[in-house]
Order: sequence, then C-alpha cells, then structure tokens
Amino acid sequence: MSDSPEVSAAQVLEVLTRVLEERRGADPEHSYVARLHADGLDAILRKVGEEAVETILAGRGDDAEALVYETADLWFHTLVLLAHKGLGARDVLEELARRTGVSGIEEKRSRRR
Amino acid sequence: MSDSPEVSAAQVLEVLTRVLEERRGADPEHSYVARLHADGLDAILRKVGEEAVETILAGRGDDAEALVYETADLWFHTLVLLAHKGLGARDVLEELARRTGVSGIEEKRSRRR
Amino acid sequence: MSDSPEVSAAQVLEVLTRVLEERRGADPEHSYVARLHADGLDAILRKVGEEAVETILAGRGDDAEALVYETADLWFHTLVLLAHKGLGARDVLEELARRTGVSGIEEKRSRRR
Amino acid sequence: MSDSPEVSAAQVLEVLTRVLEERRGADPEHSYVARLHADGLDAILRKVGEEAVETILAGRGDDAEALVYETADLWFHTLVLLAHKGLGARDVLEELARRTGVSGIEEKRSRRR
Repeated sequence: MSDSPEVSAAQVLEVLTRVLEERRGADPEHSYVARLHADGLDAILRKVGEEAVETILAGRGDDAEALVYETADLWFHTLVLLAHKGLGARDVLEELARRTGVSGIEEKRSRRR
Repeated sequence: MSDSPEVSAAQVLEVLTRVLEERRGADPEHSYVARLHADGLDAILRKVGEEAVETILAGRGDDAEALVYETADLWFHTLVLLAHKGLGARDVLEELARRTGVSGIEEKRSRRR
Repeated sequence: MSDSPEVSAAQVLEVLTRVLEERRGADPEHSYVARLHADGLDAILRKVGEEAVETILAGRGDDAEALVYETADLWFHTLVLLAHKGLGARDVLEELARRTGVSGIEEKRSRRR
Repeated sequence: MSDSPEVSAAQVLEVLTRVLEERRGADPEHSYVARLHADGLDAILRKVGEEAVETILAGRGDDAEALVYETADLWFHTLVLLAHKGLGARDVLEELARRTGVSGIEEKRSRRR
C-alpha cells in the first residue's frame, strides 16, 4: 500500500483485505500475516482473543491513542481470520449496512436474542 | 440509515459512527446503544469481550455467515466503545491506513513488540 | 452441600465437582447447571469467556471482594466445562501438583513455549 | 514444593498460593511468577485473558489432556492475579463453599442477576 497514499479512510478496509489476501501466500519467514496463516486457525483465534483483551484493558485506561491502536489490532486480526476463511471486510461491512439500512440498529439487535 | 440505502460498504463505518453518536443521547428505554452507554464503560467492555468470544467460537465452526455476523457484532461494540470515549471508526481506519501506508503491515508489526 | 457445612476450603472443589456431576442430570428448568449442559458446549464456553472478562475487569478495579467473586464464577464455570467432558477439579489439581511437585512451577513454564 | 510430594490434590491450591506468595519476591530474571509481578497488573490480566482463550479453544477440541492443561494454566494465572492483590486460593474456595453451603449453587446464581 506504499504506492496508495491517497486511499481514503473509508476505503482502507477494502485495500487492507486485498493486501491481506496477497500476504496470505507470502513467505512465512518474512510476513507476519503469512506466518499466522501457516500457524493455522487456532493461532489466529488466539491473537483475536489477545487483542480483544488488550482492547478491553486499553478501554479501561485513559489513553485514547492506545485504545485506537488496540482496536486497530483487533480489527486487523479479525480481518486475518476472515481471510483465512475466504472472507473479507466487505462481508462485515455489508452485514453492518444491512442491519442499519432497514429499520435501525437497535431494533435489529432486539430481535436477535 | 433507512433513508441512506445508497451508502457504499466502504462508507458504512462512518455512517455507523455518526448514527452511534446520535443514539448515544437517545432514550435508554428505546435504544440498545443508549442503554449500553447508560450502563457505563464496564457494560460496554463486557459486551466487547462477549462478542470476541462469540467470534472465536464462530471462527472454530464452519458457518461463514455466523462468523461474519459475530465479527460485525464485535466491530459494532468496539464502535460503541470508541463513541463512549469520543472516538470513532475514522480513528481506527486512519491507524490502519498509517500502518499499511508506509512500508507494509508486517514490518510495522515486527517493530511493535 | 447444605448437609456438609463442615467441608474444609481445601475440599470444596472436590465436593463441588461431585455436586456439579449430580446437577448435570437435573431438570434444566430448575437447575442453572443442568440448563448450561442442556444448552450445550458453546453455551458453557461462552460463560467461561464472559466470566474471564468479568475477572479481568474486577482485577482492574479496587474491590477485592468483587475480584474474589468473579474468580469464583470463572472457576465455577470451568468446572462445569470439565464436567461436560467427564473431567473434574481433581484433574486440574493433579496437573497443578505435577507442575509444582517436580522442580518448581517456573521451570515447568519455561519449558512450555 | 519439590519437598512436598505427599500433598493431596485438595491441598495443592493452598500450597500453590504459598509458593506463589514466596515467588512474588524472587528475582524476575529467574522466576516466571516474579517477572509477571514485575511486569505489573496489566501483564497478569493479559495472561488471564490469553489462558481463558486457550481454555475455550481446548474446550472446543477433543483432547481432554489439553483442556486440563489449559484450565490449570488459567487457574494458575488467576492465582498470580489474586497474589498480586494480596489474596489467595482460600478466598475463592471460601466463596465457592459459601455459595454451595447454604442452599445450593443454582439458587445462589439465580439470585445474582
């Protein structure tokens, strides 16, 4: 993405999904993402869990930058998880759009459980 | 957002951030999001933790739709957490863009720990 | 266990394991434990995750009683999980004894990862 | 504890609590537990979170030994957390005994939330 400095914040997830898809097939020696995929599903799920804990701990603190950082880490690793399953940010964004597009987020939620 | 069916997947997070900001001040009796804010930070962090567990469990299964659903739930609740702190999706997206924009995600990661 | 008020703190886990085993077959309408088993493995794992988050949040606070309470909840639900798999507190205690009995906990750990 | 091979499974938590208390003041260079304490509360909470995820992942698998191992790890790190706060296994065991001693675990739970 070093050649795409003009990417908007809104588009970053789609670019990131594409990058993650490419990195998946890279050399695990040189790519963190490739190594995660090589280590397998449980290694990725473990990272999702760890980053969720980091996000919770940062959320308890007063450092806004740390919270943003850890949330980004959490989203990043969920994107790796999605890529591992052949899915991507677009699927999540469409699900979020679907919920909010019809009759509001809250109503959707209340119908869930 | 029922009046914004044309919103692109890429933009949904920004729209969602705006909606979440509005809902924050709504009546907790009628809005799930307002209730979460009224219940306080720990209630929101608890939900982030629960949805992370749901995502991990869905990740272990074979139902792609369930994984997308739970990931959307997880992102949704991290957005509520960010809103509770006066932050939003843009902050996370900029952090993700920053990491990927310079010299690739992996290198950034390797410098971290 | 209302008929065992004299049980020592040290023995409580074994008594609890026995009680949990009995409750497993009880009526889900009247027993929280029986309902958890009836709801299935994922419901139990979800509770383990939730109680871990509660323990982490309590650990971040200053209320010693709350931390003890949430840790008890966490152990309780791991015992339900073990019972669901035909295991019990004794298995965990023997593993802990095994680690600590030979050459100390730390060395054992360092050999692990 | 290498000099206490005769310790019963029921007593192991109390012995472990004592050992953890001693190790807390040891050299962080040589003791995993001392290092955790030196790294601080968040480092310990992070480990509790990680081990909870490991327990959940092991619970989803078929390897009983792995589940016992990870549960032992989880309990171990909650004991380190308790020690960090001047608490110990006895506090948790008394809480568990209290719940089960009066009128049964289930009723106690149902009164909680």
